[in-house]
Amino acid sequence: MRIDILTVVPELLESPFKHSILKRAQKKGLVEIHVHNIRDFSTDKHRKTDDYAFSGGAGMVMTIQPIEAAIEHLKTQREYDEIIYTSPDGEVYNQQTANKLSLKKNIIILCGHYKGVDQRVRDHLVTREISIGDYVLTGGEMAAAVMVDSIVRLIPGAISDETSALTDSFQDNLLSPPVYTRPADYKGWKVPEILLSGNDKQVNDWKEKQAYERTKQLRPDLLEKHDRE
Amino acid sequence: MRIDILTVVPELLESPFKHSILKRAQKKGLVEIHVHNIRDFSTDKHRKTDDYAFSGGAGMVMTIQPIEAAIEHLKTQREYDEIIYTSPDGEVYNQQTANKLSLKKNIIILCGHYKGVDQRVRDHLVTREISIGDYVLTGGEMAAAVMVDSIVRLIPGAISDETSALTDSFQDNLLSPPVYTRPADYKGWKVPEILLSGNDKQVNDWKEKQAYERTKQLRPDLLEKHDRE
Repeated sequence: MRIDILTVVPELLESPFKHSILKRAQKKGLVEIHVHNIRDFSTDKHRKTDDYAFSGGAGMVMTIQPIEAAIEHLKTQREYDEIIYTSPDGEVYNQQTANKLSLKKNIIILCGHYKGVDQRVRDHLVTREISIGDYVLTGGEMAAAVMVDSIVRLIPGAISDETSALTDSFQDNLLSPPVYTRPADYKGWKVPEILLSGNDKQVNDWKEKQAYERTKQLRPDLLEKHDRE
Repeated sequence: MRIDILTVVPELLESPFKHSILKRAQKKGLVEIHVHNIRDFSTDKHRKTDDYAFSGGAGMVMTIQPIEAAIEHLKTQREYDEIIYTSPDGEVYNQQTANKLSLKKNIIILCGHYKGVDQRVRDHLVTREISIGDYVLTGGEMAAAVMVDSIVRLIPGAISDETSALTDSFQDNLLSPPVYTRPADYKGWKVPEILLSGNDKQVNDWKEKQAYERTKQLRPDLLEKHDRE
């Protein structure tokens, strides 16, 4: 899989892809992540990438030219399955979307900044608009980092124990059961006895019940989806 | 405002806070962001911070001791308004929560990693659990970066044009209207004529209508909230 990220602030993305799982996945050849500076594609003499909004209003708008040039440049080199624009008004990102994107071959993620990109970029160049949640960020860079992390960890081999990703929250629309580790008693705070019993059947029943109860209490909306499936 | 972040992978957070708005906000003294390595608080001879889950199951669990020690250390120095744990089963983060958190004085964000923290940390040490969306990340670090970005940009003075944050999507449960910038005609893709008319009243009406229509089409759930308010 190959992911190309277009941004006007590439510095923001220096560390998130250089450590932990994402570093390992790249080293293993499971994914290539390339961060491009949109500014490098600007034909403006000051390499400008933004301008005032037509009709006024606060905030700057990212211009079409350098974004189009960057996308066209990448498209001459390979075919892209999706050109994603990170925007608070895009479709809301979830685990199902992460699953599907993890099966793609080449994707571009375009990071918005300031007041966002000129609407014509969205109308003519982008194939999909995704929001990681109902809140506003300074730019799409952290949203891109979040998406890349959630996608790459699903690629087989990216995390050491593959079953670990399959038992994550949301994969079956249930939250995970609570987890405990040593010591069994920490300053009087104790691990539930059942987990120390060694009775696998009872432990599994307990975990299932906990996952169900927790979802019912915290996220009844997920439970409806779970029960439908 | 002061934000303390506890993590076992501090390297991941090196770049997100060193550039753009977050850098400027720190320089202006509007916010202090401190990233702490949980490992530094481990009393284990190998400075371990994780262990196998009781009763088995895939993935490692973060142990209580170093987390408690880190939190207690911080608490001796100042009072914290919230100790937030980033977890996919927490309350779902949104702009209203960002607004409220931007008014706090001191907060701690504890980043989960692997299969998460020992449940007793959640039961006894954490005051609030927040999820940035219905997807699983390798760790809470990117979630913390997202939260910090969304909070800090709301602190007055953090972004250059204050009205820019107030006209963002979600602040009134409406998506933003589309934005356009020069050139008015790019390879035949044209800006809506009304925006070039110079008629402020008509332009504002158009923007309001666009915001409303867009929200109706893309996010009818938000519109219900908007109409109630």
